[in-house]
Amino acid sequence: MSAGFDLSAWSTDRLARVEQALSLWVPEGAPAGLGGAMRYAVLDGGKRLRPLLVMAAAEALASDAANEQRAQIHAAALRSACAVELIHAYSLVHDDLPCMDNDVLRRGKPTVHVAYGEAMALLAGDALQALAFELLTPDDGSIPPAIQAKLCRLLARAAGFDGMAGGQAIDLASVGVALTEGELSTMHRLKTGALLQGSVMMGLASADAPALAQQALATYGAAVGLAFQVVDDILDVTADSATLGKTAGKDAAQDKPTYVSLLGLPAASAYAQKLLTQALDALAGSGLSNTLALHALANMVVNRSH
Amino acid sequence: MSAGFDLSAWSTDRLARVEQALSLWVPEGAPAGLGGAMRYAVLDGGKRLRPLLVMAAAEALASDAANEQRAQIHAAALRSACAVELIHAYSLVHDDLPCMDNDVLRRGKPTVHVAYGEAMALLAGDALQALAFELLTPDDGSIPPAIQAKLCRLLARAAGFDGMAGGQAIDLASVGVALTEGELSTMHRLKTGALLQGSVMMGLASADAPALAQQALATYGAAVGLAFQVVDDILDVTADSATLGKTAGKDAAQDKPTYVSLLGLPAASAYAQKLLTQALDALAGSGLSNTLALHALANMVVNRSH
Repeated sequence: MSAGFDLSAWSTDRLARVEQALSLWVPEGAPAGLGGAMRYAVLDGGKRLRPLLVMAAAEALASDAANEQRAQIHAAALRSACAVELIHAYSLVHDDLPCMDNDVLRRGKPTVHVAYGEAMALLAGDALQALAFELLTPDDGSIPPAIQAKLCRLLARAAGFDGMAGGQAIDLASVGVALTEGELSTMHRLKTGALLQGSVMMGLASADAPALAQQALATYGAAVGLAFQVVDDILDVTADSATLGKTAGKDAAQDKPTYVSLLGLPAASAYAQKLLTQALDALAGSGLSNTLALHALANMVVNRSH
Repeated sequence: MSAGFDLSAWSTDRLARVEQALSLWVPEGAPAGLGGAMRYAVLDGGKRLRPLLVMAAAEALASDAANEQRAQIHAAALRSACAVELIHAYSLVHDDLPCMDNDVLRRGKPTVHVAYGEAMALLAGDALQALAFELLTPDDGSIPPAIQAKLCRLLARAAGFDGMAGGQAIDLASVGVALTEGELSTMHRLKTGALLQGSVMMGLASADAPALAQQALATYGAAVGLAFQVVDDILDVTADSATLGKTAGKDAAQDKPTYVSLLGLPAASAYAQKLLTQALDALAGSGLSNTLALHALANMVVNRSH
């Protein structure tokens, strides 16, 4: 189905737009060095998987939409893509703080608190979260208010107590604890899955999507979100640090429960492939005519080497 | 104008609704102790000035509204009142962290990080910010989507880089630095003023308010917001710790610039009264027929003893 689709070229093109928008919207001029810390946390880094999921879902929607709806879909998608990346970036800044993971390097650069101090890192994270919601609510007429409200709802839920923040709380409590597969999957469904699934759903919320497509993409997003984590756990064991761009073997060293520690490597790999099949089956049943980018992204998440 | 208006009885009644709503909406069941930390940070504490400003502005609007609009105004106001308080509460939790003010007591109780650990305090603050936007975007039909979008916009701007978080960054950078009155006022306009003014504007955004009322209440909110800080600076010098419920003389001890250190006590007091006059003049010209609660709240902010 994704034959002939060049994910690399597609990603490069879409991410150029996202990077340009982020550079425009994350304010250089925020007071007293705050803007510098916010930009340092967000710009020039990361795989940008969440923005790509937003753009892919929005493009699937746009393909079947009336011409006059497309500009709005693309405007909403670009803002959503930036908003989910701001939430992701703030979570990394706060995660890296000494009271959490105490990481000094991220994407090969000193972490925000190393570069700007802990207090400024804390504030930059807080300001990035607020900015995410500000980006979703422009008053320039580019996005209908009902779409804005829906995007804010999806993002708030994905980021909050029943999403990312809740998953991080479980993660905090789980170090050195023997989790069942159900508990591990709840943790990851919230910690990383909610925002990945939320990204897909926000892309689809750029205009009113048919209920069938919404259900199908919720399934796709949940499967891809969980697969992302299973593959992360696998790569933590099988890849070396240079390939990963971060310290390999860290989970085991920190005695964190993982899919590999729970299921073993072969079963974890089989599980990732099963989730990929679920995701692709959901796409096939979505009623959307152009799911090439979503298809290719799911493949990439599961079959990546870093 | 506020003759015969019983602010104490009004506040007690309105805050009972806000407390009940907060207790319902700040989730006990959030995972792995997160709910407990969030509730500890929010419930049973504080003057609740921000929710009261929301309610007072919404009631001024409701008095002149058609009967069938009132239920929507009250629903939006209650959610906005809770949302601004969640933002305020999260900012206190993060402010109290060791890397910021390192406070161990707040409202007579151990601060969140003392009670729950630093990592959980960080997460609870993050989750409270997300929850504020979740409260503003219910999908139960109680608030029109266009109102939801506007409320999210106002709150995101008040909380973000050009509001509370920006003001905190200036505050961080200002310890031991000689600020001009203009710089000091910019800091406070952002740090506390933006959310206080935002509270008023969110109350007024519970339905479409006339442009005249919006302009007038923006002026009122800015004046009350700044007056709040000037009076805080005065009380830090003139009140004792028991009356304040927090450590008096702390600003001077930390070498923080204040209106009293900049203007002297008599001029600071005169400035607070001038701001009160500005706020009341704005109300008088708002075109709103019932501004009793807004009037009384402005008086209270300026003439309080703690």
